[in-house]
Amino acid sequence: MKIEVTLGIDVGGTNTKFGFVDRTGNCIVQSSMLTLADQKADKYFDRLYSEVDALYATLLNNYILKGVGVGAPNANYYSGTVENPPNLNWGIVEVVKILNNYFKVPTAITNDANASAIGEMLFGAAKGMKDFIVITLGTGLGSGIVADGKLVYGADGFAGELGHTVFDINGRECGCGKKGCLETYASATGIKRTVMELLSKSNEKSLLRDISFNLLESKTICNAALEGDKIAIEAFEFTGKVLGQKLSDAVAVTSPEAIILFGGLALAGDLIIKPTKKSLEKNLFHVFRNKVKLIPSGLPEGESGVLGASALIWNELMHK
Amino acid sequence: MKIEVTLGIDVGGTNTKFGFVDRTGNCIVQSSMLTLADQKADKYFDRLYSEVDALYATLLNNYILKGVGVGAPNANYYSGTVENPPNLNWGIVEVVKILNNYFKVPTAITNDANASAIGEMLFGAAKGMKDFIVITLGTGLGSGIVADGKLVYGADGFAGELGHTVFDINGRECGCGKKGCLETYASATGIKRTVMELLSKSNEKSLLRDISFNLLESKTICNAALEGDKIAIEAFEFTGKVLGQKLSDAVAVTSPEAIILFGGLALAGDLIIKPTKKSLEKNLFHVFRNKVKLIPSGLPEGESGVLGASALIWNELMHK
Repeated sequence: MKIEVTLGIDVGGTNTKFGFVDRTGNCIVQSSMLTLADQKADKYFDRLYSEVDALYATLLNNYILKGVGVGAPNANYYSGTVENPPNLNWGIVEVVKILNNYFKVPTAITNDANASAIGEMLFGAAKGMKDFIVITLGTGLGSGIVADGKLVYGADGFAGELGHTVFDINGRECGCGKKGCLETYASATGIKRTVMELLSKSNEKSLLRDISFNLLESKTICNAALEGDKIAIEAFEFTGKVLGQKLSDAVAVTSPEAIILFGGLALAGDLIIKPTKKSLEKNLFHVFRNKVKLIPSGLPEGESGVLGASALIWNELMHK
Repeated sequence: MKIEVTLGIDVGGTNTKFGFVDRTGNCIVQSSMLTLADQKADKYFDRLYSEVDALYATLLNNYILKGVGVGAPNANYYSGTVENPPNLNWGIVEVVKILNNYFKVPTAITNDANASAIGEMLFGAAKGMKDFIVITLGTGLGSGIVADGKLVYGADGFAGELGHTVFDINGRECGCGKKGCLETYASATGIKRTVMELLSKSNEKSLLRDISFNLLESKTICNAALEGDKIAIEAFEFTGKVLGQKLSDAVAVTSPEAIILFGGLALAGDLIIKPTKKSLEKNLFHVFRNKVKLIPSGLPEGESGVLGASALIWNELMHK
């Protein structure tokens, strides 16, 4: 009997990853190509199909494709579209419709944070949970919210924008036009901004005084903190304080069993989890205290995008 | 053929209302009794049964009881219990179990804000909606959140505590032990506190300078505002500003089609809705702007508690 697989496609600003995943979350094979952000969508999908087709051929006759799942920026689950993604020259693209021309199987799309949430539910740290939140700490802050086993899409398909809840209404300028959004503090970019603020305020010596804003990476801040750099440590503590405070608001809305941290900044482990947990507990409404787990992603780092996208469509297929 | 009805019970700190409601939201008959907050729960439920039984007798043989729904403070939908309600001498009470001894029909319980949300969905302003939030502006601020047609209960049954999301972490003392919770600003009590703050800061003449904190009612502030009292008007504007800002965070989480304002302070109509709407739109993440309706409750004022409680169990019966 042939083994059923789905195709997971993870569209990033720089690279697009894709792979075939079985029902248990085993990624049989995966590959990637450059996204080429300036290219129009039709050219992009032609290239993608060629690449995927070549990868599928390597699976020989042992596998059968049952569905396609896509994680992409500004994706709308209801309409199957991607709408004016900030880093891609696509405009409005009917992704599900286009992919149906290539692959004659059920296809679904959502943003990468939502795909991650379903990935965690089927294959990762949220297995067996029905109520949880996934926070992706990348360039920005994304979130996917699951209530009673279902992803919360909301009236328009755009629910789960915790990155744009407000920490400080007079605070840092956000790319969205507002001020003080959570993602201007709690993200790879946010912690860089915090380092700059701390460098401006204190006379403390720091490894980070030799690195420009543009060259600074969250990984560098993480390494500096591990070496005992006080500015770097304080930057993580402040980031956790802000994140924990805003997560306590989110808990009051959906009362999750767990909050799962995912993405580049989450790789700092206890450096980010400990101060976030401390601030979360301090700010929680009493009925929620000592209940909510704060845990790292349970998806393998290099495969998480493909697994999330694949999980999106596996989840649909299982509920049909 | 007999007409099917459910019994709705709305447990308040002062009065308990109960009534029989048909499938279309028509409240056939209702009555009330004193809750007697100091009385133990077993005595209370004995009294309640006698009263309900007498009311049921007036319906003669034309009706048949299909279920019982209860709205009560600190109620947990999952466990069927009320746990240490702040204003009642009950401790932990297994309400669903107790009621099953009296009425041999399906029974469910939740808090009053959640019951209101289901009431609005079945019989009120949220008919036909699948994603919305109900905010009850009473002594405190309660909320009921519906996502994809289902009430969000969360992992522990206590989801929907928007009243305890934080507006100002260094702000007003809240009864819950935290500082600056939304309900210390946006509620009947919150607007009284705002009036006192404004009276302390300004020299403006006001009708409200003659009334003590304890005697002041939100209805009085409403009437003063309608008469042009500047302090009263400013109090409503500030309340709306705070409420709109925190509602914009809630929209970013669940992306509702509408937010429905319910309860005493909501009766002020445009006085509260206009500044809330202005602040909401100003603070919304751009993808949600000009989409979210902010509307008053669609349930008849005197019947809303009974209708909400009744709707809770009608909703269960319809999905079985």
